[in-house]
Amino acid sequence: MRRNEVEELLLAVRDGRVGVDDAVDMLSDLPFSDLGMAMLDTHRELRQGMPEAVYAEGKTIEQVLEITERLVATTTGPVLVTRATDETGSALVARFPNAVHHRDAGLVVVRSEPRDGVGGLVAVLAAGTSDLPVADEAAFTAAALGLKIERFNDVGVAGLHRLLAVREQLAAADVIVVVAGMEGALASLVGGITPAPVIAVPTSVGYGSSFEGLAALLAMLNSCAAGVAVMNIDNGFGAAMFALRLFQSR
Amino acid sequence: MRRNEVEELLLAVRDGRVGVDDAVDMLSDLPFSDLGMAMLDTHRELRQGMPEAVYAEGKTIEQVLEITERLVATTTGPVLVTRATDETGSALVARFPNAVHHRDAGLVVVRSEPRDGVGGLVAVLAAGTSDLPVADEAAFTAAALGLKIERFNDVGVAGLHRLLAVREQLAAADVIVVVAGMEGALASLVGGITPAPVIAVPTSVGYGSSFEGLAALLAMLNSCAAGVAVMNIDNGFGAAMFALRLFQSR
Amino acid sequence: MRRNEVEELLLAVRDGRVGVDDAVDMLSDLPFSDLGMAMLDTHRELRQGMPEAVYAEGKTIEQVLEITERLVATTTGPVLVTRATDETGSALVARFPNAVHHRDAGLVVVRSEPRDGVGGLVAVLAAGTSDLPVADEAAFTAAALGLKIERFNDVGVAGLHRLLAVREQLAAADVIVVVAGMEGALASLVGGITPAPVIAVPTSVGYGSSFEGLAALLAMLNSCAAGVAVMNIDNGFGAAMFALRLFQSR
Amino acid sequence: MRRNEVEELLLAVRDGRVGVDDAVDMLSDLPFSDLGMAMLDTHRELRQGMPEAVYAEGKTIEQVLEITERLVATTTGPVLVTRATDETGSALVARFPNAVHHRDAGLVVVRSEPRDGVGGLVAVLAAGTSDLPVADEAAFTAAALGLKIERFNDVGVAGLHRLLAVREQLAAADVIVVVAGMEGALASLVGGITPAPVIAVPTSVGYGSSFEGLAALLAMLNSCAAGVAVMNIDNGFGAAMFALRLFQSR
Amino acid sequence: MRRNEVEELLLAVRDGRVGVDDAVDMLSDLPFSDLGMAMLDTHRELRQGMPEAVYAEGKTIEQVLEITERLVATTTGPVLVTRATDETGSALVARFPNAVHHRDAGLVVVRSEPRDGVGGLVAVLAAGTSDLPVADEAAFTAAALGLKIERFNDVGVAGLHRLLAVREQLAAADVIVVVAGMEGALASLVGGITPAPVIAVPTSVGYGSSFEGLAALLAMLNSCAAGVAVMNIDNGFGAAMFALRLFQSR
Amino acid sequence: MRRNEVEELLLAVRDGRVGVDDAVDMLSDLPFSDLGMAMLDTHRELRQGMPEAVYAEGKTIEQVLEITERLVATTTGPVLVTRATDETGSALVARFPNAVHHRDAGLVVVRSEPRDGVGGLVAVLAAGTSDLPVADEAAFTAAALGLKIERFNDVGVAGLHRLLAVREQLAAADVIVVVAGMEGALASLVGGITPAPVIAVPTSVGYGSSFEGLAALLAMLNSCAAGVAVMNIDNGFGAAMFALRLFQSR
Amino acid sequence: MRRNEVEELLLAVRDGRVGVDDAVDMLSDLPFSDLGMAMLDTHRELRQGMPEAVYAEGKTIEQVLEITERLVATTTGPVLVTRATDETGSALVARFPNAVHHRDAGLVVVRSEPRDGVGGLVAVLAAGTSDLPVADEAAFTAAALGLKIERFNDVGVAGLHRLLAVREQLAAADVIVVVAGMEGALASLVGGITPAPVIAVPTSVGYGSSFEGLAALLAMLNSCAAGVAVMNIDNGFGAAMFALRLFQSR
Amino acid sequence: MRRNEVEELLLAVRDGRVGVDDAVDMLSDLPFSDLGMAMLDTHRELRQGMPEAVYAEGKTIEQVLEITERLVATTTGPVLVTRATDETGSALVARFPNAVHHRDAGLVVVRSEPRDGVGGLVAVLAAGTSDLPVADEAAFTAAALGLKIERFNDVGVAGLHRLLAVREQLAAADVIVVVAGMEGALASLVGGITPAPVIAVPTSVGYGSSFEGLAALLAMLNSCAAGVAVMNIDNGFGAAMFALRLFQSR
Repeated sequence: MRRNEVEELLLAVRDGRVGVDDAVDMLSDLPFSDLGMAMLDTHRELRQGMPEAVYAEGKTIEQVLEITERLVATTTGPVLVTRATDETGSALVARFPNAVHHRDAGLVVVRSEPRDGVGGLVAVLAAGTSDLPVADEAAFTAAALGLKIERFNDVGVAGLHRLLAVREQLAAADVIVVVAGMEGALASLVGGITPAPVIAVPTSVGYGSSFEGLAALLAMLNSCAAGVAVMNIDNGFGAAMFALRLFQSR
Repeated sequence: MRRNEVEELLLAVRDGRVGVDDAVDMLSDLPFSDLGMAMLDTHRELRQGMPEAVYAEGKTIEQVLEITERLVATTTGPVLVTRATDETGSALVARFPNAVHHRDAGLVVVRSEPRDGVGGLVAVLAAGTSDLPVADEAAFTAAALGLKIERFNDVGVAGLHRLLAVREQLAAADVIVVVAGMEGALASLVGGITPAPVIAVPTSVGYGSSFEGLAALLAMLNSCAAGVAVMNIDNGFGAAMFALRLFQSR
Repeated sequence: MRRNEVEELLLAVRDGRVGVDDAVDMLSDLPFSDLGMAMLDTHRELRQGMPEAVYAEGKTIEQVLEITERLVATTTGPVLVTRATDETGSALVARFPNAVHHRDAGLVVVRSEPRDGVGGLVAVLAAGTSDLPVADEAAFTAAALGLKIERFNDVGVAGLHRLLAVREQLAAADVIVVVAGMEGALASLVGGITPAPVIAVPTSVGYGSSFEGLAALLAMLNSCAAGVAVMNIDNGFGAAMFALRLFQSR
Repeated sequence: MRRNEVEELLLAVRDGRVGVDDAVDMLSDLPFSDLGMAMLDTHRELRQGMPEAVYAEGKTIEQVLEITERLVATTTGPVLVTRATDETGSALVARFPNAVHHRDAGLVVVRSEPRDGVGGLVAVLAAGTSDLPVADEAAFTAAALGLKIERFNDVGVAGLHRLLAVREQLAAADVIVVVAGMEGALASLVGGITPAPVIAVPTSVGYGSSFEGLAALLAMLNSCAAGVAVMNIDNGFGAAMFALRLFQSR
Repeated sequence: MRRNEVEELLLAVRDGRVGVDDAVDMLSDLPFSDLGMAMLDTHRELRQGMPEAVYAEGKTIEQVLEITERLVATTTGPVLVTRATDETGSALVARFPNAVHHRDAGLVVVRSEPRDGVGGLVAVLAAGTSDLPVADEAAFTAAALGLKIERFNDVGVAGLHRLLAVREQLAAADVIVVVAGMEGALASLVGGITPAPVIAVPTSVGYGSSFEGLAALLAMLNSCAAGVAVMNIDNGFGAAMFALRLFQSR
Repeated sequence: MRRNEVEELLLAVRDGRVGVDDAVDMLSDLPFSDLGMAMLDTHRELRQGMPEAVYAEGKTIEQVLEITERLVATTTGPVLVTRATDETGSALVARFPNAVHHRDAGLVVVRSEPRDGVGGLVAVLAAGTSDLPVADEAAFTAAALGLKIERFNDVGVAGLHRLLAVREQLAAADVIVVVAGMEGALASLVGGITPAPVIAVPTSVGYGSSFEGLAALLAMLNSCAAGVAVMNIDNGFGAAMFALRLFQSR
Repeated sequence: MRRNEVEELLLAVRDGRVGVDDAVDMLSDLPFSDLGMAMLDTHRELRQGMPEAVYAEGKTIEQVLEITERLVATTTGPVLVTRATDETGSALVARFPNAVHHRDAGLVVVRSEPRDGVGGLVAVLAAGTSDLPVADEAAFTAAALGLKIERFNDVGVAGLHRLLAVREQLAAADVIVVVAGMEGALASLVGGITPAPVIAVPTSVGYGSSFEGLAALLAMLNSCAAGVAVMNIDNGFGAAMFALRLFQSR
Repeated sequence: MRRNEVEELLLAVRDGRVGVDDAVDMLSDLPFSDLGMAMLDTHRELRQGMPEAVYAEGKTIEQVLEITERLVATTTGPVLVTRATDETGSALVARFPNAVHHRDAGLVVVRSEPRDGVGGLVAVLAAGTSDLPVADEAAFTAAALGLKIERFNDVGVAGLHRLLAVREQLAAADVIVVVAGMEGALASLVGGITPAPVIAVPTSVGYGSSFEGLAALLAMLNSCAAGVAVMNIDNGFGAAMFALRLFQSR
């Protein structure tokens, strides 16, 4: 409710067109419900194209289905389900025949965004084949959001020449998502040879003192290449969402 | 701004006692700035007797003085400064002659609450003499908030008879703050012999594998006496604030 | 053995009705067995309405059944079994037909307290749907203890308007239990907008660097909203017990 | 060696001005030494406006001065020194009279970028006054890089209304840097109410179980607001550099 | 090479039956090969009654059987297998009909020591029923070594009277093994009320921030009751072995 | 109050020498205050020769002096002050001229036990010269308690022959205290070659990933030599106290 | 592109057979594509005898098969698959009949190196039988690389004589791989009695506070025997590869 | 007891100069006292050229001087003092005028090895200037041991071209010591482009979540370049010692 609407309401009160009681009702819950509305509005506005995402871990299949159905019915943008088990994924596909189930990534794209690459180019790098599920989550999420994707697999630091071979392609990216487990050094390396923003996603790939991704996480946080930002371990989804924010704020 | 105030305003508009423009001004920024006001109001209302506290760590003496002066000038309830160095404490006492500086506790009570013990009785237990600074922070903060305090020092588990000797006194307390370092077992013990809510405050007292209070913290979180809640390490101030909340919500 | 009982015994000794040897026998083990009795008495007394709870983890079904049967037979208040597997839960329901099995929460209410809401109102907030099992444990335990419960689900910080929308309802609560995983920020937020005591329960919901709830636990312990107390990770039961202590000490 | 240089060399070969052997020598070590040159070129090119930064920790004052002098002499863009002690800062100011020493932030801006705000607007939020040194590092670095800065101090979650009051201003920012210690909840909150990319910087502000910033770090990594990226603890410099990358890649 | 063998060799040298050179050769590598023998001897001597124990974790059933058979064949004292799965245990019982399989404790006593209680009395306390498997491992191991055992179950700190009720019995013990999970406070308590050596065994019982026994371990290491020594988490076997050492060194 | 005292009191009641009221008064608070007395008695009794020890860390010099004076005045056995700074130590020596200040160990022996070696022999091993302060704390404490001590310095695993050279002397010890930092392997080695109980004391000697003694602590807890018990990091005092318990329980 | 190719190209330019523009095109991307070639060359050259290894964890069986097939087809040296499940191993053996599947070690040697022991002698020690899978990975990998292997099992510190008995054999080794879990002390011991380089491999063998190999890892990193280098937990493969590097650099 | 001594003894037996019993006595304790001698011999032999090193941390200046003097007097090879404070270093130089004090590295070379580079070439890389003290410790130690050294400073991953520029020089090294803090990625990179054995030394350079070198340590342990071995944090000395072992075992 903007100023001129309030003004008109008050004029109507003054002129007797609206009764005081009705006007009070219209104004009474302003501080909170209007805030709620306003925020919802803003939210909705800022969410043009932002996915509604359901975090499936710790939820029953029934809960996931119910929440997803509500989102599909009440929103118009992309709808994704993350961290889905195979069973949850199958149930979603059975319910939403157009849904795409990326099994390795635990990702179900129930509804995706049609616009193609408005936002610029997101390069998604995976250090090794074992990092692919997380890179998939990042790439398929970004694609579902309408972003343009280019992927580079198996470009880890142990084979430096493979990375250098794609260096010019990386230079063309607007944002670079680096997915790596073990020692996570790829993020530093990419940060050192490209001027684009680097979003580093540590993975839980590794064993022993990788401590489920802690080694890669700490390495990426301590990158000596300035300007590398880090997501949670295995959080490919978050990297894609961050990329979306970048393009939306342009 | 409550419903009846809005009603009166609208009636005044209808009756021509208040112009539309003025009324709009009074209502216009409701969604946000009024929210702020409303929240501030609510805050102030709910804060009757709640301390304004300045966390001095990481602030310059100048910053602490400036913030404190503003609080003293714009509020009426208690004003405390926590984690104050000796220098900061001295500067505050120089500026506010009525301030009381609890040096060991790093606490400066700039203005305290006059009401005496309305809220019931807070028992503050310290397991050992080395835990006294944290127990002091809890007790002097609570006293500054107008709570009634009873203190029990050196009642750690190594001397069980000392604790049992005060068992009936503990039974009379409305809330019990247990301050203990090392293995922090006192919280479990007190939780097992009293029906009152127990607020456990681990301290950084200890060495080696106490890891600056981690041992006591973990022990208290894992208390087998059900219904023991835990504060941050060395956070006597928080325990007193929690006690205040308890009495305020009665 | 209370004072008047001792008095009567001594009178009987004086009057020759009881021999000295017999009297000595009756008194001789006072320091310990009477202490035991006294403590049991006190315990029983203070436990009016306090649940007898069986922690099922690490116990065989047979052990759980046996302990539960003994508790049901020898006590009169609520009897609960926590951390029960589905199998243990089913075995309990088979043995105690009135028992209610909250499967997701791993909680079996074998016998509950009839009094309804004497103790005031406990608000139980869950940040997300995945936090529901722990919130359930808190709420169903509290209900079994005879406390009045109001629940607020899916009010996490990512959707601030949902939390603000229930702000006045929260203001009416006597104690607020905040259940949240991931970054656990909801506890700070609630602590900042309500004057009631906040009991924060971190959950193991999350992945990667949530480290099974450590992230939420640390966040809650470090809340900048003063007066937030913390329970162990996933310990909804403990939060309910703490609430019971609050009302019992009034 | 640029294309036209190669061209000229080949023309000289064709025209007989340079013998084949000499030309081969000039080209022979291309793969490495020229790579070095090429990379330096590329680097320099992509670094237009990127700061040369000296990490002063662990270096002697002499080393810092020598490296800084070399950078000032051989580059044309901004030159900064981070993590400088007061002594190092004074020595730099003595040597470079135009240098600006931000003492609390441990930052010395030896040479800054003249262009004003080409890159869009960077909002820098500090949760509390104690977080200011890190927020300063972020803001003064960004300013030195030629970015436009708007600062919001003391907008932590304990005073939600202060944050909501600046909500519209935040909506205008192209990128938001959130600096917070303790439980670090501000990042989640800001992520939930704005569509811009959020760069979260945990600080070591706090005590006890904050474990020198670990609590805030983990909280930010686990933010339930999707699309929040995280820097190392106290790394305001990195956040500014990441912002620079964002604008450079547009 | 035993003394009498050396003697015979020297007699042969004296009598000229063996040349000096040959004798020197036979003795020359004494420092090592004889050391091996000597140490084995010493070992065997000091091991009178010490169990040969096979740590089954990480070994195949075949490996466990083979090692056990060898031990049974070549030694005369007790033979135990620890950390045995149910399958391994069954295989051992099938092979050694006299073996006793303590399933919950994962312990198989293949051959035990007949002497009854020579060494004095070992009190084994378990804080809760969930700690029984570890207490079993300690008690059954000690019994297999010929030690006299007295057990006290469910004497944790939440029910202080139960512990105090057995206080005199504890005073009669020569060594006290305290088995406790969660916050592990029982060790401190027992250490405070008895003069006997206390061997504390933390268990992995608990959840959330017990971190698989870390909380109890740290608590026990930091016991404020002086003279409490600690074993590894869940290491009941080690506690029994330590007790054996105590009695052997008398 | 022992049985015969109760008997005499009852006889006096029977004979009319003591009134019932007075007798009730004398008996009335038995369950608690007498418990206290009883425990004190027991304590005192069991403490024959046990040191009263003051943990000086976190206490002011005044507090340490006051507590020490009280202990000296009210007890007859040894009195020690641990973790004393040089200043505290000097103050104690000034106040108690007979006190001995072991500066490196931070130990002040205010009063020691005269009996020499009743309890058997305690071997105290230090892996390296840097471990001497902790070994000193153990040895000087044990000596002050009247135990017989034999010390072995610089017998760490890097020089195996030095350890083996004293192997027979170790065999004569009743209990062996192994003090070692870095990787703490000495405890396993000693446990493997001697039948006596081994008390392992990790020290904070080391750097980098020794993490202030954590490496040695974990190593000792995981010793593959069965029957090695562990004290807190740098806790030489506790090891001596444990030894005292061993001899007292014989 | 080798020197003679460049030479020919330049001759062609000089002789007018190739135009300058075409020649520039052929040379223009030299810095990168040639770098790639050069590095591949170098790599190939340096890799004579170095295994191509596939890390199977986190990869599907199909991915492993496909990658392995490519490696077998395009390389000539050894090909290994590490961290293979039983299923993956069986699939590889089905596809490559000559492959050898070391089931316990999770290692499949698809193609091995024929040369026998050119590189000198690698001694592989396992502290206990439970450490054998990791020792197997080291030994079978080294053998597949053509190194000469000698194995020593069950030589942990609890049985010192077993280690000393093989001391001379160890002295003959060129490099010693020490595989040990629990407290990992064997590495220090071996380092103390041999002059050869010691590569320590901690294993995840142990329980409780071994924390999946952390105890052994820290112990080995802190070895007081100077010159012991450490691999990741359970990384027997890495130890063998390090040994290969040693011999290759001779 | 050497061979000739045994020979003489046997001759004396043969000749009847020594009785069999006496000879047996003289030989009986051979396994141990002679072992000590033997081991010392072996030790001395294998230690030709190995440094005697004094770890100064935790030792008084007097202790360091005394130990050093003894070493200088009783050995002939290199003598070093590590982790020396400036004071300790000065005291050593005052006592041993030929000693060289590397102040930043905390290293004092009291006596060094004259042979120059017999062992091959050790390349010592430092990622950044702040890592120089640790690289110095490695390089100056190696030089003192008579190894040939080549150093490469400031070749961290943020400036990849600097590393690639020295790639051929690295290929000539027999062993490569990589010293790096922060994310420690340099070790992986070097491991990927060279065939020589790589010894990685993490440094405590960094801040925030570098956790005093933990980030670099974990990264190096998890290197995806196979065959990288790791030393303790800041342990340059150990790396040099490992290099010495490599050359000694050739």
